[in-house]
Amino acid sequence: MPRYKLTIEYDGTPFVGWQVQAAGRTVQGVLAEAVRRFSGEEVVVHGAGRTDAGVHATGQVAHIELARDWKPDTVRDAMNAHLRPHPVAVLEAEPAAEDFHARFSATGRRYLYRIIARRPDLVLERNRAWRVLRPLDVDAMALGAARLVGRHDFTTFRAIGCQAASPVKTLDRLAVETVPLEGPGMEIRVHAQARSFLHHQVRSMVGTLVKVGEGAWTPDDVTAALEAADRTRCGPMAPSAGLYLAEVTY
Amino acid sequence: MPRYKLTIEYDGTPFVGWQVQAAGRTVQGVLAEAVRRFSGEEVVVHGAGRTDAGVHATGQVAHIELARDWKPDTVRDAMNAHLRPHPVAVLEAEPAAEDFHARFSATGRRYLYRIIARRPDLVLERNRAWRVLRPLDVDAMALGAARLVGRHDFTTFRAIGCQAASPVKTLDRLAVETVPLEGPGMEIRVHAQARSFLHHQVRSMVGTLVKVGEGAWTPDDVTAALEAADRTRCGPMAPSAGLYLAEVTY
Repeated sequence: MPRYKLTIEYDGTPFVGWQVQAAGRTVQGVLAEAVRRFSGEEVVVHGAGRTDAGVHATGQVAHIELARDWKPDTVRDAMNAHLRPHPVAVLEAEPAAEDFHARFSATGRRYLYRIIARRPDLVLERNRAWRVLRPLDVDAMALGAARLVGRHDFTTFRAIGCQAASPVKTLDRLAVETVPLEGPGMEIRVHAQARSFLHHQVRSMVGTLVKVGEGAWTPDDVTAALEAADRTRCGPMAPSAGLYLAEVTY
Repeated sequence: MPRYKLTIEYDGTPFVGWQVQAAGRTVQGVLAEAVRRFSGEEVVVHGAGRTDAGVHATGQVAHIELARDWKPDTVRDAMNAHLRPHPVAVLEAEPAAEDFHARFSATGRRYLYRIIARRPDLVLERNRAWRVLRPLDVDAMALGAARLVGRHDFTTFRAIGCQAASPVKTLDRLAVETVPLEGPGMEIRVHAQARSFLHHQVRSMVGTLVKVGEGAWTPDDVTAALEAADRTRCGPMAPSAGLYLAEVTY
């Protein structure tokens, strides 16, 4: 049966997460519904990453299998027509090999985390970034981030309920940059790249780096927390609204 | 009485516009309500520009006069506390001279217009930009924009109901740039700067420039439309959601 690779953007705010659950609206659910409405087929939409409630994507990847051989652009346009008014769009639909699997074939994931340091509540970026009240020391955050890059036991930065077989992962990149803002305040972006991540790993690392940016932790404290391999040594977890699944590579 | 200059950000989507009207929620109205709730005073919030329904601001300026001499930071924080959950924030409150008037003392206004050219509906930028379906020729748009810079009779680019005394204005800057996007498509930004603008002038100019970007108009057509001084010669007006009042200078 023809298989399609879909690249998907969504605003995670109104969803209980990616994955279909007993109750609540999910991204996976509205995508499957859009497929059903245009093709009449019941499919499972297999995603590369199971983002949590409130987490966004600019480059989630999923695959579907359809009985009929639609043109990829037709799949994209027909799904988008049925996705309205949900804040989900198929950016691209491409033919995929029979053995392509969005999750198991993936060789890398890239996440973006957006932090805005300013006193007033966010308005145009509401639900799009983590607002922290005070400026952060970005150089210190970059030093802290460097302590986490490489192959480590990331138990400290792993959700209690994480189902990964092993807490050992290789973090390829954890970069901190500032972006100019219109108006007061500063935006800090954290870019995280790895073959795969543990559940809550990016938000746990970002929460810890913000502790460093605030001056409450030193880069050495980050190393000590990592080496402790103890969830209770993690900084507070960063909120979901700042996190974006930016890219999945194959 | 102490006078305060306020710099204000808002998402224009849920508002019928800046200015208080017989019916509907306005930015000016929720700001006045926030002042009343923290100070007990009834004030008029005098804005520098009367943005239309759906138009945003990252740097609107307004002034208010209060009987009591509050610290400016207290005015900012107290207004913000009472502005929730409206998508409006006071970015800065500063003491202002007795004769400072947000509208009449202004010496310049800067607007930003955001266009995103891509086929799928906007998701994360929904209500934040104008989505056009096809790529635009940005070089041609820049050539068209150059024809509008300077002192001209802007009747072609003026709303029928515009109340300005004269249609002659000096446009100091109309620049077109592209901004890289995550994912497919392109973002085009138009920056417009002048001492003041006619009603609907920026959206009328942007709609005309998009005609040029699509290849339907040449830069010479822009000059001909300008010189005709005839509203019916304007391109279609760009939608409100892409427009931001970015800065007011004094």
